[in-house]
Parts: sequence; structure tokens; C-alpha cells
Amino acid sequence: MALAYDGAIQRLIDAFASLPGIGPKGAQRIAFYVLGAPDEEAQRLVESITEVKQKVRFCDVCGNVCETSPCAICADPRRDRSTICVVEEPKDVMSIERTREYRGLYHVLGGAINPMANVGPNDLNIAQLLNRLQTDEVKEIIVALNPNIEGEATTTYLSRLLTPLDVKVTRLASGLPVGGDLEYADEITLSRALEGRREV
Amino acid sequence: MALAYDGAIQRLIDAFASLPGIGPKGAQRIAFYVLGAPDEEAQRLVESITEVKQKVRFCDVCGNVCETSPCAICADPRRDRSTICVVEEPKDVMSIERTREYRGLYHVLGGAINPMANVGPNDLNIAQLLNRLQTDEVKEIIVALNPNIEGEATTTYLSRLLTPLDVKVTRLASGLPVGGDLEYADEITLSRALEGRREV
Repeated sequence: MALAYDGAIQRLIDAFASLPGIGPKGAQRIAFYVLGAPDEEAQRLVESITEVKQKVRFCDVCGNVCETSPCAICADPRRDRSTICVVEEPKDVMSIERTREYRGLYHVLGGAINPMANVGPNDLNIAQLLNRLQTDEVKEIIVALNPNIEGEATTTYLSRLLTPLDVKVTRLASGLPVGGDLEYADEITLSRALEGRREV
Repeated sequence: MALAYDGAIQRLIDAFASLPGIGPKGAQRIAFYVLGAPDEEAQRLVESITEVKQKVRFCDVCGNVCETSPCAICADPRRDRSTICVVEEPKDVMSIERTREYRGLYHVLGGAINPMANVGPNDLNIAQLLNRLQTDEVKEIIVALNPNIEGEATTTYLSRLLTPLDVKVTRLASGLPVGGDLEYADEITLSRALEGRREV
């Protein structure tokens, strides 16, 4: 009985299944799609993977992904150099850019403190952030980490580290998501929303 | 404002997003995973894609995917050559193999009749099936297509074509899925289950 595919197809299914968010059925579907796709499309996928591994590096200043360091944001003279927004991952930079509200610089930590996964402060891009505070004219650090246990722990750690350095440290507001429903808000979110209430 | 990533990363995100079942957020997550993964893992993905496109072909006999034609199932002397199970896609062969109940041969049509997508009988691997009936000692054809409109239309087409050829044509039973719940069965499935009721 053949309970697995012939070598090459099974290897491709396994390779796709090892990527995040792709299960065995999804990997099988993608593998057969690639098999049936025009050669150019498969070639494009192969080349993009190779290109990313060769070209993409991390910005020496902020730790964001880029092809030339410093990255486009750090090198942009129109950005406000007095504010640094600290995020966990490069994709968080993109999320904040999409708001079109923020004109300052970024700093990418590369994760959050997580004792369960053996990630301590020294594994994050924190020393480089302190360096930037000494040389740049930074007035405010906006800590924009994920609102979960790891993000909270890292926010507390950073605020203790940064507050003595004569720089304003702020964090994103917690509260009800716009378009959300009071009925479905969890207790912690709702008490944060109460706590952070503002005059209308 | 940088609303898209630097060239190479955005190209990789786009390439992943063009695969079936992967949305923009999933593609972004996978692209960053590949970026951070060890070089060997990215290389393994690249090689599996290249290998599948180079090595995998279709079996000249049954139309299943294989690396050498005829495929392992067609070439296996222990399989029962009097029965052919007709399926739509190579992955359906694997689904039936996993039951460990079927010992006969297969025939992969490569799809089902679908006028909306411009797929007619001539676009399917049907002529080759008729050829096999002339040369092989086939006594039964099990039509195992998907229980949807396209599968039904193709089953009807095949049964009209095959019945005059002195071969028994059967199809998979329709009915309640094992572990299912009568309350949640749709009307058509339930009436099929009634229609196909068996003595206990």
C-alpha cells in the first residue's frame, strides 16, 4: 500500500507543512498546485526565497529588515528624529506605518522577554536602543509591544530602564477596539478602557 | 511613508500569497519565518520545489503522479487488475489508499466535467480509460468522484459511456458520515441515506 506519495512530492509536502500556519492538507494542496503551475511561477517562488535569504539584512540603527543599512525609514530626512517607537517585530513597523499617523523613527527589539522560551533582555536589541538615546536627540519613546504577558513584561522592563534617562516613555492605549462591542469585550480590556477613560 | 516592504521581502510575500489557501497575513508570516530560518531550511524548500518540477510526471497508464511511469501502483503485481477506481485528482488516490480497503488499480481523470470552467469530457483523461478496458481484464469500474455537481455530472457521463461495454460500473455510497449527527445532516444527504438503507 502506498500511504505516502512518491519521494519528490512527499518532500515538497513536508517542506510546505513545516512553514507556520500550513497544515498537512494545506501543504498537499499547495504542493499539487506548484506541480501543476507554469514553470515560471514555480521559478518565481524559488527566486524570491533565494533573493530574500541573500539580500535582506537588518538595519544597523533600528533593527528593521532592509536591503541597505540604514533602512529607508532611518535614512529619511523627513522623519521626526525626536520620537522612537519600539516594536517587537519588523511586521509591527508595517502595521504602524499603515495608520499613516506616525512620523517618527522605529526600533525593532526582535521579540519580547519570555522566560518560558528562554528569551531574556540580553537576547533582544535593547543595548542598541540605549546607544541611540546617547547620540540622537530623542525626547519620547513610544513602547508599542503586543498586549500580552510577554509584551507587558517587556514594557515594564523597558520603562524601568528608560525612565531614569530623562526621556518621556509612553505606551499604546489599551481599550475597546473600534467597531467592537461592549458585550463581547473581556473583563481585562473593559477595565483598561474604564481606567483610561477620557473627557469627551 | 513605507506602506510596502523593501523589494525582496515584498516579492516573497506576493509569491506566497499567490499559493492556494494562503492570505496576505499568512504570506507575511511565512516570509518572515523563511527570512529568519536557517539557510539549510530555506534551501530545502527551494530544492523540493525545483525537484518536483523536474522529476514528477504523470503515469502513462493511470494518470497518477509518479517519478517513473508506470507508477508504483500500476506496476505492483499484487494489485487486483480486475477493478479500476476512477478518481478526479492524484490526492484522491492517496485518500482511498489510506482506507487500506482497496486492492485494485486507479484511473485519475484530472478533474471533473465543469461547463462553467470550460472543462468538457475531452479535457479529461477518459480516452485512456477506454483504452485500458480494451486491453486489461477489467470487470468493475468504481466511480469515486466528489459528491458535488461536477462529480455527479461526470459520474452520469461515465456510466452512460461505460455501461454498454460489458463492465460493472459502481459508485461510492452516499449517506451519513460516520461520527456525524442526524440533526446536522442536510436534506439531500439524509434522503440519499434513506434511499441507500441496508438491512442490519
